[in-house]
Amino acid sequence: MSIKSLIRTIPDYPKTGIMFRDITTLFGDAEGLREVVDTLAGEFQGQKIDVIAGIEARGFIIGPAVALALGVGFIPIRKQGKLPAKTISVEYDLEYGSDIIEMHVDAVKPGQRVLILDDLIATGGTALAAIDLIEKAGAVPVSCAFIIDLPDIGGAARIRERGVPVFTLVEFEGD
Amino acid sequence: MSIKSLIRTIPDYPKTGIMFRDITTLFGDAEGLREVVDTLAGEFQGQKIDVIAGIEARGFIIGPAVALALGVGFIPIRKQGKLPAKTISVEYDLEYGSDIIEMHVDAVKPGQRVLILDDLIATGGTALAAIDLIEKAGAVPVSCAFIIDLPDIGGAARIRERGVPVFTLVEFEGD
Repeated sequence: MSIKSLIRTIPDYPKTGIMFRDITTLFGDAEGLREVVDTLAGEFQGQKIDVIAGIEARGFIIGPAVALALGVGFIPIRKQGKLPAKTISVEYDLEYGSDIIEMHVDAVKPGQRVLILDDLIATGGTALAAIDLIEKAGAVPVSCAFIIDLPDIGGAARIRERGVPVFTLVEFEGD
Repeated sequence: MSIKSLIRTIPDYPKTGIMFRDITTLFGDAEGLREVVDTLAGEFQGQKIDVIAGIEARGFIIGPAVALALGVGFIPIRKQGKLPAKTISVEYDLEYGSDIIEMHVDAVKPGQRVLILDDLIATGGTALAAIDLIEKAGAVPVSCAFIIDLPDIGGAARIRERGVPVFTLVEFEGD
């Protein structure tokens, strides 16, 4: 089974016209889970990565397994108010309103090379905020990786324009 | 470094008198992350486990890595309204009010043997609801595993009384 065929599509979720790409069916499949982690770890094996940052909540699912494969630690980037120690934060715009993501202030050391992971890249708003957060901590956002790219929405292109490379495993066009 | 020494304690979080056990420092350490996953996988290697269920959100951090080590899939148990496909749910009591957790109705097959993972066991309310959820789907909650046990609060004992074995890595007494 290919990674793409293990991703389930839920039409009209969370609202009419949206084709929601559901990765729970991919992670529920032992071979699918293995292939995702092996492919991500293989891509970044040769690069110097010090730590992996995963974005809440689905970035938590894949990040630590890839961190283990690369022999590095894992740090969570969370929504506001979820982390117990001292944090730094970045606010970013949504389609309507704004949101805030946070990271522990001591989660990365200055100069550390960080790989940012999440399940899916759409507009790229959260990932760009994560890049800002890593830089605010004095660390280096080496690359962003996602399982799913929705290229028509253009988030990966926005991140590359920001100067950060993007690696994705599967594309769904027309979304 | 032992697993316990890598867990940071935040006094008076989220409210006065609570000693919050912060596992982000454990996962941020490559050796700590490796030791947690190896210990959990080692414990369940000999048992017949078909799938690992992780409870949102910190159960997502450790579950897939252990699933990979055991060669099985991973399924998420989430708070209400977060899963895109058809779900089953269980409501459970909190200190004040109640909460609901959900799982995709097709996440497990009847008869499958499920290991439930989360980062910490306190009262056991969420874990007991997860056990109910797995049974409601016709599957078998083989065991619950947690990184941290707070034995004075008694959650692990409540789960064992319910007939489900509990495995924990470190204890903090007096909490």
